[in-house]
Amino acid sequence: MPHNAFYAQSGGVTAVINASAAGVIAEAKAHPDTIGTLYAGRDGIIGALTEELIDITAESESDLAALLHTPSGAFGSCRYKLKSIEEHRTQYERLIEVFRAHDIRYFFYNGGGDSQDTAHKVSQLSEKMGFPITCIGVPKTMDNDLPITDCCPGFGSVAKYTAVSILEASFDVASMQRTSTKVFVMEVMGRHAGWVAASAGLARDERGMGPDIILFPEVPLDESRFLEQVDRVVAERGFCMIVVSEGAKDAAGEFLSSSGSTDAFGHAQLGGVAPVIVNKIKQHAGYKCHWAVCDYLQRAARHIASKTDVDQAYELGRAAVRYAVNGDNAVMPVVVRESDLPYRWHIDKAPLSEVANVEKCLPTDFISDDGFHITDKARRYLSPLIEGEAYPPYQNGLPAYRTLKKSVIPKKCAEFYDL
Amino acid sequence: MPHNAFYAQSGGVTAVINASAAGVIAEAKAHPDTIGTLYAGRDGIIGALTEELIDITAESESDLAALLHTPSGAFGSCRYKLKSIEEHRTQYERLIEVFRAHDIRYFFYNGGGDSQDTAHKVSQLSEKMGFPITCIGVPKTMDNDLPITDCCPGFGSVAKYTAVSILEASFDVASMQRTSTKVFVMEVMGRHAGWVAASAGLARDERGMGPDIILFPEVPLDESRFLEQVDRVVAERGFCMIVVSEGAKDAAGEFLSSSGSTDAFGHAQLGGVAPVIVNKIKQHAGYKCHWAVCDYLQRAARHIASKTDVDQAYELGRAAVRYAVNGDNAVMPVVVRESDLPYRWHIDKAPLSEVANVEKCLPTDFISDDGFHITDKARRYLSPLIEGEAYPPYQNGLPAYRTLKKSVIPKKCAEFYDL
Repeated sequence: MPHNAFYAQSGGVTAVINASAAGVIAEAKAHPDTIGTLYAGRDGIIGALTEELIDITAESESDLAALLHTPSGAFGSCRYKLKSIEEHRTQYERLIEVFRAHDIRYFFYNGGGDSQDTAHKVSQLSEKMGFPITCIGVPKTMDNDLPITDCCPGFGSVAKYTAVSILEASFDVASMQRTSTKVFVMEVMGRHAGWVAASAGLARDERGMGPDIILFPEVPLDESRFLEQVDRVVAERGFCMIVVSEGAKDAAGEFLSSSGSTDAFGHAQLGGVAPVIVNKIKQHAGYKCHWAVCDYLQRAARHIASKTDVDQAYELGRAAVRYAVNGDNAVMPVVVRESDLPYRWHIDKAPLSEVANVEKCLPTDFISDDGFHITDKARRYLSPLIEGEAYPPYQNGLPAYRTLKKSVIPKKCAEFYDL
Repeated sequence: MPHNAFYAQSGGVTAVINASAAGVIAEAKAHPDTIGTLYAGRDGIIGALTEELIDITAESESDLAALLHTPSGAFGSCRYKLKSIEEHRTQYERLIEVFRAHDIRYFFYNGGGDSQDTAHKVSQLSEKMGFPITCIGVPKTMDNDLPITDCCPGFGSVAKYTAVSILEASFDVASMQRTSTKVFVMEVMGRHAGWVAASAGLARDERGMGPDIILFPEVPLDESRFLEQVDRVVAERGFCMIVVSEGAKDAAGEFLSSSGSTDAFGHAQLGGVAPVIVNKIKQHAGYKCHWAVCDYLQRAARHIASKTDVDQAYELGRAAVRYAVNGDNAVMPVVVRESDLPYRWHIDKAPLSEVANVEKCLPTDFISDDGFHITDKARRYLSPLIEGEAYPPYQNGLPAYRTLKKSVIPKKCAEFYDL
């Protein structure tokens, strides 16, 4: 007797989280004896709490097919962290109430570390409350900070966007440096870990283009040493390309730029460190500087997504359903790297208990001794992740991204106001 | 008896100026009876003044073929404006001295309005000095502000990058708006004319995504009306997407953001209006905001170039040489639009005297009555310019852009220090 399933997207969206959704949908359809109707949460887990369940079968085949090439969270995502069961038991009970009302026995949670923690807690509580829910995580985060898995869907595409962008900018600045801009600073995402900043390093290959200096959150800025390095590079080659992580810190460990506000998870909302760096350089040496801040453009850039990333996102979505169908519970599919070159990988599973709330840091030996670039080891790890192009179809010169109808099914439970 | 030719890239580079170079090179090669050796100026016109002439024939065939897909100015460009002949006659005389020394009788100048003005002056002086130089302009500017021509090579690709980027960001913000960012501001280039900002409007199509509000340099910011509009949009759809031109001005006509420094042409160097707009919105309504500044990324983004733009850049380069070979002088090839849909165009020529120093403004009827968006007329004009994709080849996950050797030939003239 089949039971229904619930899929939700969580946290910051990526260029490929919808590809994972496509994988979940395709695989769920392949197991009609086990999985009945697949619902999606409107705006992530909030959709479960408010009983806003999107009927995926009501979407057209072509719209669902477009998930493979449409960035963002097609069903809506949210920054909303469930507290501990002790602190907020009613929320977990509510989830189970809604799941019970709709005969939902499979819960696929597509998100980062916080979301895997939530999936883990739901699985624990469902056991205690006697309503069995198979909880499977689907990894996602452009931050690339989930443990165990070789990499996280969403990261490879941001990495490709970042490396391509700084490569292109370096060609631009190189051709103008004699009479124009000498220093270019590009700000990328990465609060605590320099994964995205590191990916920019790939653009420095045998061509000698790309970034000269990368400022990682892991390396407190030694201002005078940094400014000396800028001077040296400008003297040597006429210009200097810099990539700075939004989470770059000063010697005292403070963010170089912080807007002072925090997001729903309590993390500081950052942005605008590029102009801070530019001002330091201008005051020091008076070079003409330009700067860019990529912000959401980098994580939404499906037009330049990594094929490796798209493939992995899709296959991880499919694997999540396969694990559920095979009777696994409280696990998350992960990518296991078999070799760097050629890049070979397969999918295995990891217990949610080992995934939840563990942050994978950028290894120390990925950063060069001077703290300003990446090592060959980092390059061997990162390079396969940006391999391959997976262009979306275009119409009228623009990517043929699609939106969904997102119609919700009739409610069966009482309203729930305790969000 | 063939004579030699000189090609130079000028001003801010684009994703497709090298495609024009490829067109010039291909066509010059096709007329060996008229054109002998084709030299390129190292760093633009400066290369002529300093007698740094790059021997294009010394470059490999494959490197030259890569010009078609490599952004930036492969021979180097410069921001360097020759003054009037009265003010700085020695510079013009020097150009003619160098041209005479190397039997250069064809001068192809690939740039915007200032450069076409220079080409025009050189043609006037060469006549007076009795050394005949055929001066042909090759249009280029992402600003799209050259007169007569339907559009300027470089603009279509920036327009495509801009429309794609704000489209993608709108999908991102739409999926997160319930619990996260409500307002996103993307800053694009455009000092005095809102061509690039207008191109963002293409992303607002029948899907209803893309920008809700566009701030043009042509429309002084009425702050309270703007903030009301933001409130209205957020109330209606939950979030608001804004594109702002770097040249946006306040009611008094002052740039909303100016770094205070100026470039070699005496234009104010701008940047950073996005955070200014965000601060106004935050202070007014406290919405969570994010912002991006595209800066050079937009004009260097060959990875998402418009095929229409690449084709036109290449054909205009070829046409410039054809006009020269056919005995034209002091002209610039221009694009003539025959129809919008399908977009049909051919190439004609315009006298440099009519091109030089004339700035084509964004037509008033391209901006909607409320001042916050584009009209259907603008859409009909802009849409064909972003049509088609012209992806570069990739290697190891990155575009296979190439750098040139840029070796200069032996000098024949005395040093020239009066730059």
